Amino acid sequence: MLIIGEKLNSTIPSVRKALEEKDVKFVQEMAVKQCEAGADYLDVNTAMGDEVQDMEWIVRTVQEVVDVPLCIDSTDAETIERGLKVHKGKAMINSITMEKYRLEGILPLIRDNDCSVVALTVDDQGIPTTVEERLCIAGELVEVIQQNNVALDDIYIDPLVLPVAVKTDNALKFFQSLDEIKERYQVKTISGLSNVSHSLPKRKVINRYFLAICMSMGMDAAIMDPMDAKIMTGVLATNLLLNQDRVCQEYLTAYRKDLLED
Amino acid sequence: MLIIGEKLNSTIPSVRKALEEKDVKFVQEMAVKQCEAGADYLDVNTAMGDEVQDMEWIVRTVQEVVDVPLCIDSTDAETIERGLKVHKGKAMINSITMEKYRLEGILPLIRDNDCSVVALTVDDQGIPTTVEERLCIAGELVEVIQQNNVALDDIYIDPLVLPVAVKTDNALKFFQSLDEIKERYQVKTISGLSNVSHSLPKRKVINRYFLAICMSMGMDAAIMDPMDAKIMTGVLATNLLLNQDRVCQEYLTAYRKDLLED
Repeated sequence: MLIIGEKLNSTIPSVRKALEEKDVKFVQEMAVKQCEAGADYLDVNTAMGDEVQDMEWIVRTVQEVVDVPLCIDSTDAETIERGLKVHKGKAMINSITMEKYRLEGILPLIRDNDCSVVALTVDDQGIPTTVEERLCIAGELVEVIQQNNVALDDIYIDPLVLPVAVKTDNALKFFQSLDEIKERYQVKTISGLSNVSHSLPKRKVINRYFLAICMSMGMDAAIMDPMDAKIMTGVLATNLLLNQDRVCQEYLTAYRKDLLED
Repeated sequence: MLIIGEKLNSTIPSVRKALEEKDVKFVQEMAVKQCEAGADYLDVNTAMGDEVQDMEWIVRTVQEVVDVPLCIDSTDAETIERGLKVHKGKAMINSITMEKYRLEGILPLIRDNDCSVVALTVDDQGIPTTVEERLCIAGELVEVIQQNNVALDDIYIDPLVLPVAVKTDNALKFFQSLDEIKERYQVKTISGLSNVSHSLPKRKVINRYFLAICMSMGMDAAIMDPMDAKIMTGVLATNLLLNQDRVCQEYLTAYRKDLLED
């Protein structure tokens, strides 16, 4: 499973401050630390500042020190375009939806750039509540994204988990959606980890087991904090159980480096 | 999911000592503590001592203080018979296999007593390595147990997980077996938690995520330590995610009692 580091997000106050001050050291250190902790991609989000300018700056600044591709995280087409323009290598766009304004802005960017795409199952009616509605929007997304030159392998659908505290079958519906989307459309799946536990205590415990179950459903990528030792231990243990860790090597290496946190 | 407390097992030195000394206080306290921690059944095993006599004694001793049914854990028919004789209410037998000597001894007991039965997918050729062999033995077990007056609902098949350190697809094969056994035979499934992590470091981490994935596969019962706060926290979080905790009540109650361990 791909780990997409979530820590360079302008909704985090320290990151917002670093963007305002163009603090190269802070941003580069955060990038390096996430990669050292196991990130395969780094998400970059600048929505809370001068979004377009900051995106160009952060993409350049981060790529000076790390080799992983970036996940250009914005709802704004101009911001994504600016990020893509300066990005070296194949970026990931995060995200497109079936909302008309986002489709119109972002589809041309997808068509004209070699990139992978995160697509959320939302349309102008909002976030669906049933599995079938999610599958339906996922199907529309896959069709329109494919028509714009993106291979199935480069499409990551996020069926959007809603909090279990709002309705106790929300996670279960999400798991069913993950399973069905892979089966029906042969695309990849992705999720963030924190929505599911919203407004409950000890959220990180819930997030960890949520991720383990998603992984057992074959989820391909998670947007998460790779510097959280407990969740990374969970990922290593789950990979081991799912036969994704040849000769237990990654688990044992992490143990020898004292990285496993009980 | 049913939680079967595993702590009254004569392979644990303190329990073995308590059995030798007929230490009523030790045994009863261990029984009460497991029930308070959430056990639905208590496993009792006396294999390391005077097995038949000790089984009678422990069943009587435990049932003086707790109301949960016991899981009479032995490979020896006479021991199981003695346990059943003194057990109040409907016991669980742990376990039968397709091995000839166990079938001959234990089937008459199943036929003549109202009980539920744990059945392991082993025959005279040993523990199978493939999913299909497990399914085949499971089918034979279900047939022979049903012929001896046990309802499908009272049959718990354990497809016997082997350590991932021996072969990295062992857990995955087990998960597939769990899924297929429920689908094909409409019986219940069960497992212990510790075999999977044998000879690896930080075993309890692996065991916890193993249980979460088993639960997501619909496993009906686990033989485990209910006094381990971290694994019980995992069970509560996983139940929440699988819509097995109405209005998040059990999770929130455990939080308020300060029982959730991160």
